[in-house]
Amino acid sequence: MPTVPSADTTAPAVDVADVTALLERGRALAMPELRAAVARLAPPMDTVAAYHFGWIDAEGRPAAGDGGKAVRPALALLSAEAAGVAAEVGVPGAVAVELVHNFSLLHDDLMDGDEQRRHRDTVWKVHGPAQAILVGDALFALANEVLLELGTVEAGRATRRLTTASRKLIDGQAQDISYEHRERVSVEECLEMEGNKTGALLACAVSIGAVLGGADDRTADVLEAYGYHLGLAFQAVDDLLGIWGDPESTGKQTWSDLRQRKKSLPVVAALAAGGPASERLAELLAADAVTESDDQPAAGGDSDGFTEAEFATRAALIEEAGGRTWTEAEARRQHAVAVRALDAIDMPDRVRAQLVALADFVVVRTR
Amino acid sequence: MPTVPSADTTAPAVDVADVTALLERGRALAMPELRAAVARLAPPMDTVAAYHFGWIDAEGRPAAGDGGKAVRPALALLSAEAAGVAAEVGVPGAVAVELVHNFSLLHDDLMDGDEQRRHRDTVWKVHGPAQAILVGDALFALANEVLLELGTVEAGRATRRLTTASRKLIDGQAQDISYEHRERVSVEECLEMEGNKTGALLACAVSIGAVLGGADDRTADVLEAYGYHLGLAFQAVDDLLGIWGDPESTGKQTWSDLRQRKKSLPVVAALAAGGPASERLAELLAADAVTESDDQPAAGGDSDGFTEAEFATRAALIEEAGGRTWTEAEARRQHAVAVRALDAIDMPDRVRAQLVALADFVVVRTR
Repeated sequence: MPTVPSADTTAPAVDVADVTALLERGRALAMPELRAAVARLAPPMDTVAAYHFGWIDAEGRPAAGDGGKAVRPALALLSAEAAGVAAEVGVPGAVAVELVHNFSLLHDDLMDGDEQRRHRDTVWKVHGPAQAILVGDALFALANEVLLELGTVEAGRATRRLTTASRKLIDGQAQDISYEHRERVSVEECLEMEGNKTGALLACAVSIGAVLGGADDRTADVLEAYGYHLGLAFQAVDDLLGIWGDPESTGKQTWSDLRQRKKSLPVVAALAAGGPASERLAELLAADAVTESDDQPAAGGDSDGFTEAEFATRAALIEEAGGRTWTEAEARRQHAVAVRALDAIDMPDRVRAQLVALADFVVVRTR
Repeated sequence: MPTVPSADTTAPAVDVADVTALLERGRALAMPELRAAVARLAPPMDTVAAYHFGWIDAEGRPAAGDGGKAVRPALALLSAEAAGVAAEVGVPGAVAVELVHNFSLLHDDLMDGDEQRRHRDTVWKVHGPAQAILVGDALFALANEVLLELGTVEAGRATRRLTTASRKLIDGQAQDISYEHRERVSVEECLEMEGNKTGALLACAVSIGAVLGGADDRTADVLEAYGYHLGLAFQAVDDLLGIWGDPESTGKQTWSDLRQRKKSLPVVAALAAGGPASERLAELLAADAVTESDDQPAAGGDSDGFTEAEFATRAALIEEAGGRTWTEAEARRQHAVAVRALDAIDMPDRVRAQLVALADFVVVRTR
């Protein structure tokens, strides 16, 4: 199990009930607004988007999809409270960040050829590639619309931060794709990619509510620093789950990241470690790169020629070379940096404790 | 030739030299800023975008691509002057509108399976579908970034108008795709789709410079009305070129729109006209729809099973049913509405004359 025990840190134990309540509040406040925004889309995009969010099934019948963990909406509401305004002020920010996040999921699933997300067929599988592109575009545009129609100076500042984060997100996906086709990726390159792909939007989620509430740039920057490192911790755990996660929990295939030749943290750390297991892993990956060299991304990045046993061998080599242990430690390091960043600004004690609890939750999750 | 003679209207004759100079000024002022913006993209997206704009060839060598007609930048600069400020004030607007326009071209070419644009292979053909998606996303994000980093209240208002236009553009593409798979589309539905797909962004181009120059909402709305109807005139001519255009001029295949089963204006007008040619056309298109029913868009919307003679038959039936004549008249009608809209606001006489000259140019162009 890729949970990261916190016995060796001084972080407080996670108050699960509190985190559950925070995530639930995020859903309760943001989801009605998110649904209202999505309902503005012209048919059939509204239906395709509703399928993506898990609100309806492939036949259009209402479904009880959970729409993901909803960490970002919870953070956007806490962000407003960190700036001393009501959680509700953060709602348009929560909706905008969720829209950008889901725009990227729709496009990434198509580019990566991923057929499953959250235990369901992905949009391009069900509704075709064109709808996946189009609805992704529409959600991205809608994100800016939801903010800018507030018509305030703060909304303009929030949109600017969201746009910067979106560009980094796209840069990160470009790096992720190019790394799949490279034999060697350094740990630093991987961390930069993950900072762009995951850190930037989580950082924006944690600053956007405060910005909408009139916080100054310094407060927003400090909150972004917390969010950025939280994102790196989040992604380190995701990388562990991408190899050793339980498909029942993650909703993805076994060895999901290995199937796609992702140069995720455990892989690059194992390759950088040196030693027999590291070298054997490098040989196997180099051989894969040769046999897959005529591969085209978008709809099918799978290493379908491999058996379960071959993936198990790669996973075992990564673990033996120390890639798993290093990534678990990295999740704890980023968690600690995130929590420490909060010391630089004043905020209500309750909000600070809740941001810490959310950070704890992110590193112990199993999906 | 699908040129629309203006002999039966009272519009002034086009001053070709003047329009050429206007387009050239738009290019000269906006292109360096556009190149600087695109250069910010992370590799390999910067290279892919440079290929798309025609600045380099598929091997990365510098190329003398013209990057299209550049009508939108010319309009954005005139827009600033219409509000009484220097043309240069409109430059970030010109760049942002060009970025959104090219985002939509990248994604539409992939969704429509178009292999050629401006006499060159499209991005998805050369660099793969993933890069076409990713670079489109990046240009869309960059458009908002270019405006919002101005940091002014006017920039926020301009971004809001651009976002609204972008959403309409996406709605229009969704309608366009869904119409290809429908047997009947009314003239009204087609005009609504073309208003979204072409009118909205041209409208934004004509208002964005003025908004950046501090124009009030009424001035911006009037300029948008001119731009919207100009867009409908532009699209009517495009629809004529899509069937009867010279591939040498357009850079597209012969019968381009018929190959893709586009329900463009000449087609829907012919179907709505009634009479023997209209009915025969309806029978042929209904038969096409049945044989193509298992068709999936994205990479391949072509009716490849048809011969040149079969496309020629369809084109002849559209013309016989009156679809061509009706669309030529529609281009003139929309041109007249556009020009008349300008009467509602004050602006320098020279700027008004140039906006009229650009409108004239749009309806007589052959590419």
